[in-house]
Amino acid sequence: MNFTYSEKVEAWREKLIQFMEEVVYPNEKVFKEQLDAQPDRFADIPPIMEEMKEKAKKAGLWNLFLPDSEYGSGLTNLEYAPLCEIMGRSPIAPEVFNCAAPDTGNMEVLVRYGTKEQQDKWLKPLLEGKIRSTFCMTEPQVASSDATNIEADIKKDGDQYVINGRKWWSSGAGDPRCEILIFMGKTDVNAQRHRQQSMILVPLNTPGVQVERMLPVFGYDEAPHGHAEITFDNVRVPAKNILVGEGEGFAIAQGRLGPGRIHHCMRIIGAAERALEVLCKRVEERKTFGKQLSEQGVIREWIANSRIEIEQARLLVLKAADMMDKVGNKEARKEIAMIKVVAPNMALKVIDRAIQSLGAAGVSEDFPVANQYAGIRTLRLADGPDEVHRQAVAKLELGEQASLRENNCLYN
Amino acid sequence: MNFTYSEKVEAWREKLIQFMEEVVYPNEKVFKEQLDAQPDRFADIPPIMEEMKEKAKKAGLWNLFLPDSEYGSGLTNLEYAPLCEIMGRSPIAPEVFNCAAPDTGNMEVLVRYGTKEQQDKWLKPLLEGKIRSTFCMTEPQVASSDATNIEADIKKDGDQYVINGRKWWSSGAGDPRCEILIFMGKTDVNAQRHRQQSMILVPLNTPGVQVERMLPVFGYDEAPHGHAEITFDNVRVPAKNILVGEGEGFAIAQGRLGPGRIHHCMRIIGAAERALEVLCKRVEERKTFGKQLSEQGVIREWIANSRIEIEQARLLVLKAADMMDKVGNKEARKEIAMIKVVAPNMALKVIDRAIQSLGAAGVSEDFPVANQYAGIRTLRLADGPDEVHRQAVAKLELGEQASLRENNCLYN
Amino acid sequence: MNFTYSEKVEAWREKLIQFMEEVVYPNEKVFKEQLDAQPDRFADIPPIMEEMKEKAKKAGLWNLFLPDSEYGSGLTNLEYAPLCEIMGRSPIAPEVFNCAAPDTGNMEVLVRYGTKEQQDKWLKPLLEGKIRSTFCMTEPQVASSDATNIEADIKKDGDQYVINGRKWWSSGAGDPRCEILIFMGKTDVNAQRHRQQSMILVPLNTPGVQVERMLPVFGYDEAPHGHAEITFDNVRVPAKNILVGEGEGFAIAQGRLGPGRIHHCMRIIGAAERALEVLCKRVEERKTFGKQLSEQGVIREWIANSRIEIEQARLLVLKAADMMDKVGNKEARKEIAMIKVVAPNMALKVIDRAIQSLGAAGVSEDFPVANQYAGIRTLRLADGPDEVHRQAVAKLELGEQASLRENNCLYN
Amino acid sequence: MNFTYSEKVEAWREKLIQFMEEVVYPNEKVFKEQLDAQPDRFADIPPIMEEMKEKAKKAGLWNLFLPDSEYGSGLTNLEYAPLCEIMGRSPIAPEVFNCAAPDTGNMEVLVRYGTKEQQDKWLKPLLEGKIRSTFCMTEPQVASSDATNIEADIKKDGDQYVINGRKWWSSGAGDPRCEILIFMGKTDVNAQRHRQQSMILVPLNTPGVQVERMLPVFGYDEAPHGHAEITFDNVRVPAKNILVGEGEGFAIAQGRLGPGRIHHCMRIIGAAERALEVLCKRVEERKTFGKQLSEQGVIREWIANSRIEIEQARLLVLKAADMMDKVGNKEARKEIAMIKVVAPNMALKVIDRAIQSLGAAGVSEDFPVANQYAGIRTLRLADGPDEVHRQAVAKLELGEQASLRENNCLYN
Repeated sequence: MNFTYSEKVEAWREKLIQFMEEVVYPNEKVFKEQLDAQPDRFADIPPIMEEMKEKAKKAGLWNLFLPDSEYGSGLTNLEYAPLCEIMGRSPIAPEVFNCAAPDTGNMEVLVRYGTKEQQDKWLKPLLEGKIRSTFCMTEPQVASSDATNIEADIKKDGDQYVINGRKWWSSGAGDPRCEILIFMGKTDVNAQRHRQQSMILVPLNTPGVQVERMLPVFGYDEAPHGHAEITFDNVRVPAKNILVGEGEGFAIAQGRLGPGRIHHCMRIIGAAERALEVLCKRVEERKTFGKQLSEQGVIREWIANSRIEIEQARLLVLKAADMMDKVGNKEARKEIAMIKVVAPNMALKVIDRAIQSLGAAGVSEDFPVANQYAGIRTLRLADGPDEVHRQAVAKLELGEQASLRENNCLYN
Repeated sequence: MNFTYSEKVEAWREKLIQFMEEVVYPNEKVFKEQLDAQPDRFADIPPIMEEMKEKAKKAGLWNLFLPDSEYGSGLTNLEYAPLCEIMGRSPIAPEVFNCAAPDTGNMEVLVRYGTKEQQDKWLKPLLEGKIRSTFCMTEPQVASSDATNIEADIKKDGDQYVINGRKWWSSGAGDPRCEILIFMGKTDVNAQRHRQQSMILVPLNTPGVQVERMLPVFGYDEAPHGHAEITFDNVRVPAKNILVGEGEGFAIAQGRLGPGRIHHCMRIIGAAERALEVLCKRVEERKTFGKQLSEQGVIREWIANSRIEIEQARLLVLKAADMMDKVGNKEARKEIAMIKVVAPNMALKVIDRAIQSLGAAGVSEDFPVANQYAGIRTLRLADGPDEVHRQAVAKLELGEQASLRENNCLYN
Repeated sequence: MNFTYSEKVEAWREKLIQFMEEVVYPNEKVFKEQLDAQPDRFADIPPIMEEMKEKAKKAGLWNLFLPDSEYGSGLTNLEYAPLCEIMGRSPIAPEVFNCAAPDTGNMEVLVRYGTKEQQDKWLKPLLEGKIRSTFCMTEPQVASSDATNIEADIKKDGDQYVINGRKWWSSGAGDPRCEILIFMGKTDVNAQRHRQQSMILVPLNTPGVQVERMLPVFGYDEAPHGHAEITFDNVRVPAKNILVGEGEGFAIAQGRLGPGRIHHCMRIIGAAERALEVLCKRVEERKTFGKQLSEQGVIREWIANSRIEIEQARLLVLKAADMMDKVGNKEARKEIAMIKVVAPNMALKVIDRAIQSLGAAGVSEDFPVANQYAGIRTLRLADGPDEVHRQAVAKLELGEQASLRENNCLYN
Repeated sequence: MNFTYSEKVEAWREKLIQFMEEVVYPNEKVFKEQLDAQPDRFADIPPIMEEMKEKAKKAGLWNLFLPDSEYGSGLTNLEYAPLCEIMGRSPIAPEVFNCAAPDTGNMEVLVRYGTKEQQDKWLKPLLEGKIRSTFCMTEPQVASSDATNIEADIKKDGDQYVINGRKWWSSGAGDPRCEILIFMGKTDVNAQRHRQQSMILVPLNTPGVQVERMLPVFGYDEAPHGHAEITFDNVRVPAKNILVGEGEGFAIAQGRLGPGRIHHCMRIIGAAERALEVLCKRVEERKTFGKQLSEQGVIREWIANSRIEIEQARLLVLKAADMMDKVGNKEARKEIAMIKVVAPNMALKVIDRAIQSLGAAGVSEDFPVANQYAGIRTLRLADGPDEVHRQAVAKLELGEQASLRENNCLYN
């Protein structure tokens, strides 16, 4: 639990901050303008994005998320955390550095579980930022917070698998560069609960794959990536597209979700920091009833509470990251569950205060906060709702306390 | 404080509920589809709206909001409250019954403060639902929660007034039927604080009036009404367009805001009720970990707390309405301030729980709740942010307690 | 739901307020001093109490709680509510007016379910304030929030019942005037869940009844009444002491708890009002950093929120009272459950703010607030913890919504 | 920020935990029984205390709080934090290890600011646990959260100082072993705001020092230490008793409060951990409505939230401790202010849940939680109320953000 940034990390941070200030922040508006100017917001990628990506790649600020040192930066979770936080400050930043969800999770899956052939075909272009990907797990008809509820079907038929089902909230599927998806479905409903599921690679252009609609998030289309509802109607892919093997889907999902969750949390910290900056700046600029807003006691309480909540959330994220590095994702699952609850709820509070401090401007497009709010609100649901994570924390806590009591380590 | 619905009110309620179920609810989807099908979402009104309005007018469910019995229904605030609540259940309902903001407030201003000529020209078509209107008070450059901050300028020039300024959050200005606006600006910056402001009627098509952009609320455009940013560049209107006279703007605003605020609160109760219904229905339909969601203790707490919060908010709204009827808006200002804080905050909590119970569907367009959330979030800012109302309540409370202490009515 | 005080109620209120100001408040300190001067705080009643009771009886301010008009005032719950609230302002007031728990509940039980003989022997002296009583239901060994958990035993033996068990939180048992208790136990563990329990009258001086200790509430002994832990060791009472008959205990408990709960809630409103007064007075008297505390925005938020929360809680209590009067305690059980959650939680928030505004004085004996806090904290547990009431509200709500959906009355 | 316990710290922890389990916990009850058996709860110290102290001294578990290595353990704040947390688990533990407030703060003052003579006379016996001490700063007549409000008077008169004033919440003054107090008063009301105050050493038995009463905390007398109200009536002490010199009082107070505050926070973490253990154990033991309490979703949320809040608070305390070690108390003042708000509020939430899980037992003496609640509630007031600390955090935050903006380090 040494949270002091190492020299190595400090060097990355400096480089990254400078890049953000020189390249990313000034182009947020450009990105938005280019996007708004498109007749179809999902048809093209604002050109500024590829320009920024080229610069980032040249600067070596590329694939920092990937712990594996052959393909990625080889940073530990603890090292990556402060960098990911900085990227989280801008909604367009993660992609600039090829560190955007769901590609990061999909790349990790391919690094860990992909065959050489799968890696050559899909991992490489993803690592190069040439293509994008999506992940098809959640289904509209069932409560997906319980992964065993999944109804989608994957059937072996000779040397092919035939896929049927309806998925939604497949993020990034609206992106014209999205070429590959990882599909989770059941290969054997009679296997034991956590061996029924499998994951398989499906190119987006396979016949039978139909993007039915793009789903809005509080009115935002999140173009050009977006969140899709996709139907799979007798979609056929080669049997070799399966990941690891039949029945491995649940295990892969578990492995994928740990890092995915913590990356979200790291980015959320950055978003909250930015919202607090927006708040602090604004309240210095406005007056009501003869007083600077920044002199109002109530607003000062917002600022203090925001700072307090951000600091605590960051420390817990760092602790979880450190545990993932040292004892592994499974042993760190309690900490991961905790930050999955803490980070979005913290940020929503901070952002809501920022909105309130901005007045009506806060709910508009003139400041990043309303969009942040909507995006982070979904993270109280995505990858498991708060409630499921809290129950998980409690179950682990009760277990630990019971075994401590057996060992007489507690006195009450 | 007799909150039992009178027979008269019960009759109106029955009629209204039936109309909602037969005409309004089934057409929510139709309205959305017609709107989405338009090439420009602000160019036309989905035809279903005028059809529904015709039906409502025929059914006598028209202008119920207006206490004045010559023009309106003659209902008291207390009588209107349960009816307005029902309308608040559907985002398209208030307009169907010609009870939508900001027209209602503007009509009240014209009834109370308009000259015969002003009434003939603008009030009548508004009462008939032929035209719509907007209200231009908030400005982007200053904190408008303090009305004395207003910078817009209204200058007498012969028998005309010349108007300059920039306004925003002029709701309904996107509507193609919007023909008239009420503008608030300063006629005399040297007068005393609350006598500097005046209100004046400005036809939307007056040269110099320029809708600069429509403002999104979170990601919603709120078409076809929308919220506009409007510039006024040497806009000239006849001097007789002034309301009451120079220096009366602040007083008119105060008179306008009381009923406006309580109408919002009444509608919010209805929106919260509907969100709770959505929640209750959903949790009966979904299962996780082998249990109906409706059997989960945590979700039952949400339901109980929602019911508790809604009931309390409704009772306070009814109390405020009753006081407005009996002692007038000014004497009821503490109660109005209280409900202005209570209602939106209550509803946001209820709606947020509904979102959470729905999973990712909750933030999408498939349920009304995300849109409700965004809309009601703005009501923690519109007509004064929570903080200003709380300070007002506290000031009044401190004053009341001080005078009670002087009269030895308290013992501590 | 007519919450306007009738002339009759206004007359009672005036009389009661005057009595409080003339007799009760000035003697709070006297009561405390007399109590503190006693060598054994449970041995005697401070003489001022009986003096005040005499005055109240003479003034006709006596047994106002009792709806039954033969014995009591004949006030409805709605009429009694504002009077009970006033009594709740002072911890010593309820007894002064013979309206203190648990006597009130016990008297109601005797009025409703007692035989003539039982009434003559126990109800009369209780109504006259000659003796006091206690109620023995909660047990230390089981979670009493589920009444079916009760383990105490009542066995018929000839024309006697033999009673065994351990009870605690028998309030008022420390009072030297306490002569009778109502005991709840099981007469038949094989009967159906809600027919196993019976209630029986037990004189405190029956052999085998042993007050083991007085239980502190936080650090308060609550003398001279107090809360006792009592053991019953082969206690024998005449069979005619049973209330109604064997198996009626659960039903009687339900009947007893409704009014008991609402009385608590009414008193809590009064306590919260007083705490808010303490707060408002104090913040006008103290300065920090060159400013009156009452000018601090944060403190004004406390005041506003307190007023808002008190108003809402009071209205809900009045609604529940009105429903109890009109549709009966059973039909009003949802409302009773709601206020049982709302009132103490509201008051604890208000009182906590008062404590905070007082600085260290707030936790001491110099102000009533710390003692109020402790007392009202117990009411989140007594008569069922919050959680049980919330689950009850949710269950009723889910049922109502389901039947509305069946009748097509909801649209979602 | 390396929060991993070093080997040295782990060794201390092991030793301390073992001592707690073998000596402290089993004697909590003994201490209480001996205390309750005394005719005057402030007249004597339960003998078990001195026995435990002897054992702790022998075990080398003594004065661990003192960073100075000549007199104390030489532990850094970061090293002491986990040890202090363990002591915080039992209300009687800190004294056992000679690490109890206010002695610790007073000893630190004497180490840092005392003359050799003052140290020989007072510091030595304090370090040996032979005598105890108190601290007289807070006054009943003014809001002491603003230290400049202090009214007590210290006047030079020849080679003596004459002291007049009324102080309260002088903790530990009830202890029969309390021999020395540090008094804060004004030596020069005309000096600049923070140079008016001085601190001076006053033996408790000096004529004119009168303990007026012991103040209860939520009904608890906190015997045998207690909190005293003390009057000083022309109390004369030698001039050499002054600490450092006239006008140094404010500076000494600032130096004293930093460590004092963090020690409180460390102990609070331990108290919260213990409350959570109590909760977890209890809910495994009780059943309602056919289910273990530990299986109830609502209770699991309490457990999860408690764990989450404790973890975050602990990490922030460790960060503050680390900063105090590395950049000094002044530079760490924002972090100290943050934990002073976070720790007690966190613990009160955790403890309140524990109370609720225990039912009525929770407010009694049968579990440590009600007493913990009362004690920790005072820590939202002592050493500055939450509100003052939040304003301090906000002021620092606004300043930091302003200077970052000037340096273009933020982008918004």
